[in-house]
Amino acid sequence: MNISVIVIGDEILLGQVIDTNTSAIAKSVGKYGWRVNDVQVVADDAEAILRAIDRGFRNSDVIISTGGLGPTKDDITKLTLCRKFGGTLVEDKSVLKNIENLVSRRKMKLNDLTRAQAMVPTSCSVIQNTVGTAPVMWFETPEAKVLVAMPGVPFETLTALPEVVNLLREKFPSPDHYAHATLMVGDFTESALAEHLADWEEKLPPHLHLAYLPQPRLIRLRIDGTHTDRQFIESEVERAKNELVSLIGSAVLATQDLTPAEILLEECRKTSMTLATAESCTGGNIAHTLTLIPGASDIVAGGIVSYSNDVKMRLLKVRASDLETHGAVSIPVVEQMAKGALQATGATLSMATSGIAGPGGGTPEKPVGMVCIAAALCQEGNVKVVSETDYFTGTRKRVIDSATTRALLLALRLLRKS
Amino acid sequence: MNISVIVIGDEILLGQVIDTNTSAIAKSVGKYGWRVNDVQVVADDAEAILRAIDRGFRNSDVIISTGGLGPTKDDITKLTLCRKFGGTLVEDKSVLKNIENLVSRRKMKLNDLTRAQAMVPTSCSVIQNTVGTAPVMWFETPEAKVLVAMPGVPFETLTALPEVVNLLREKFPSPDHYAHATLMVGDFTESALAEHLADWEEKLPPHLHLAYLPQPRLIRLRIDGTHTDRQFIESEVERAKNELVSLIGSAVLATQDLTPAEILLEECRKTSMTLATAESCTGGNIAHTLTLIPGASDIVAGGIVSYSNDVKMRLLKVRASDLETHGAVSIPVVEQMAKGALQATGATLSMATSGIAGPGGGTPEKPVGMVCIAAALCQEGNVKVVSETDYFTGTRKRVIDSATTRALLLALRLLRKS
Repeated sequence: MNISVIVIGDEILLGQVIDTNTSAIAKSVGKYGWRVNDVQVVADDAEAILRAIDRGFRNSDVIISTGGLGPTKDDITKLTLCRKFGGTLVEDKSVLKNIENLVSRRKMKLNDLTRAQAMVPTSCSVIQNTVGTAPVMWFETPEAKVLVAMPGVPFETLTALPEVVNLLREKFPSPDHYAHATLMVGDFTESALAEHLADWEEKLPPHLHLAYLPQPRLIRLRIDGTHTDRQFIESEVERAKNELVSLIGSAVLATQDLTPAEILLEECRKTSMTLATAESCTGGNIAHTLTLIPGASDIVAGGIVSYSNDVKMRLLKVRASDLETHGAVSIPVVEQMAKGALQATGATLSMATSGIAGPGGGTPEKPVGMVCIAAALCQEGNVKVVSETDYFTGTRKRVIDSATTRALLLALRLLRKS
Repeated sequence: MNISVIVIGDEILLGQVIDTNTSAIAKSVGKYGWRVNDVQVVADDAEAILRAIDRGFRNSDVIISTGGLGPTKDDITKLTLCRKFGGTLVEDKSVLKNIENLVSRRKMKLNDLTRAQAMVPTSCSVIQNTVGTAPVMWFETPEAKVLVAMPGVPFETLTALPEVVNLLREKFPSPDHYAHATLMVGDFTESALAEHLADWEEKLPPHLHLAYLPQPRLIRLRIDGTHTDRQFIESEVERAKNELVSLIGSAVLATQDLTPAEILLEECRKTSMTLATAESCTGGNIAHTLTLIPGASDIVAGGIVSYSNDVKMRLLKVRASDLETHGAVSIPVVEQMAKGALQATGATLSMATSGIAGPGGGTPEKPVGMVCIAAALCQEGNVKVVSETDYFTGTRKRVIDSATTRALLLALRLLRKS
């Protein structure tokens, strides 16, 4: 089944907010083989919203809209939905109760604007938003097409999505089965991997589809397909996945859709390792990336952001002479940082970075984007250290993200080889 | 002037990649009062792309498309543009040279797929992409409408945008002048601020527009307007900004569009302070947020991610007895962490967090979302500490983001009051 997404909000068109709801919706419905085939971003403007709904229903049986439901003045979505689906706005007792609960949990007082969030069109049925004040509203046309209006706040949409998708599946039962598999591949650029797989991809049957999803220094490779025979499509995807694994070899980091941080945490859990970081140019991003994952506290002991040379010496015991001779961005320093992180935190596996994130600070010998990375592993009292120097391109953020990924993968490789 | 954006790529419709280019484009053109009035996301499919172009040109004189220009098979955009604008694909020498430079800078070899990136339609003029292999292509219709095809990789689009916008301004000189101002406001919810400003907003003249842009624990308030008289609109926006500042009072954190981290770094620069962090539940995110900003290395000394109690004691000198009596998530512990960060790094201003980011780990006394935050300031040998306990809602990521913002604001307040 196809789904049209309508994103409502001037803040998106002005570029002030990045729309993440489309991705959340597409992933949620994608699990069942449904596809978002059309996305429109429109202003907080009644005519624009009505035009978008007409186009959405031309393309799809289901529209999911997000946004335009906030308490401030520019949000005219609810009145526009009354124009489209009929009805008037009335206060809904269950929504009001939900709002009152939320407001008291946040230790705030209910004001008139927030209370107005409980006004909903009589033409819809309400799906409770348990984490926000704007309710989710379900509308149906006489032709049994459905529009679900969801709030714009990403975590509210994310929270309500499972229930919305379940209701849609009840309303539109599908004969098709969808299967997919994801490989995480390191050590290849997108074009090198595409070239490596070109012959194989050429022979792919029409019911299977391969997609390349490059991330900084990593490629997600996704194979999927839809078919009425569930067993057939599942075994086809499985077969293709196994063929890819043997074609790509050791560059396959995982056969599931996992981030490098998730792969490393999982591998540490299996081998009873604990993690530490010593970050200069990545400035805490490696630790942040690891600790974003629920349950990281069992594995991550801690880390040190050693932005200044002083902190590198104080907390990581980097030798002043090496800082002087080789500079902070050097293999000797980053290797000492990795070892120092183990000592300072008592962890058994560590990563360290030192580099020039830019945009300033580059020299001909050490250009912007140059990052030295090390990993250290302590096993039975012996410490093993590996290191590399990378040259990344792009913005400061991209250099930091790329260095983070490489550091996680360097630690992973050290652990797997040990 | 209005601009239509077309985002091309299955990866966006599948939810595997979040589109950030629309926001970058909208912000770039927004500086000149131009508006993105229409965004369409379409598949890597010739018919879908052609339909989107037709709609785009119905709505606007300019289309900016992003994506669909990668080296792998699903990228059929260039051939589709030949169908729309005429011409055939030929190898462009200047593009090939740029690609060769890039490939050698990355210490890689040129393969056939990458070389094919130098094939461009004869019907376009090329704008060089200095940081990627896919060139930017400029097409014009007989009616003098323009389509600019940009690559999908965000930092490539970001890098090429200033030149594209300059060329568009030459082609479409505008009589209108645009002015805007942004206030960063803390200590208000969106609805409380909207209520506070309701009377004032009611009286706003039609050439001015106020927008609320809520972020976790922070609101960006933007006032803007367009007029043929530059001086008039600039003084109108300035007047409105000053009125807002006096209406909102001390909750105004900045009168420019700055993040809390930028405001804090700037304030530290002015007062010759250096920064340190001691992070438990935020896991490095405060340090990461600060060090993402170019030039942070002058101010940020370093930080400690003390995820385990052991690291809290080792590196931050938190007393074991307080960890035992009050627990890691407590005001006594987080205050010691803040002081410990000053001692460990030699910085003069610090922030510390300890909390339950979730989804697990909550108890009735210390629920998920509870975070203790402290800031410590060292002035003339005296250390002053402030702290607060917050109760955040939402996902793990949102709790971490909210705690990060509050910690930065707590340090800022401590610094401003001192």
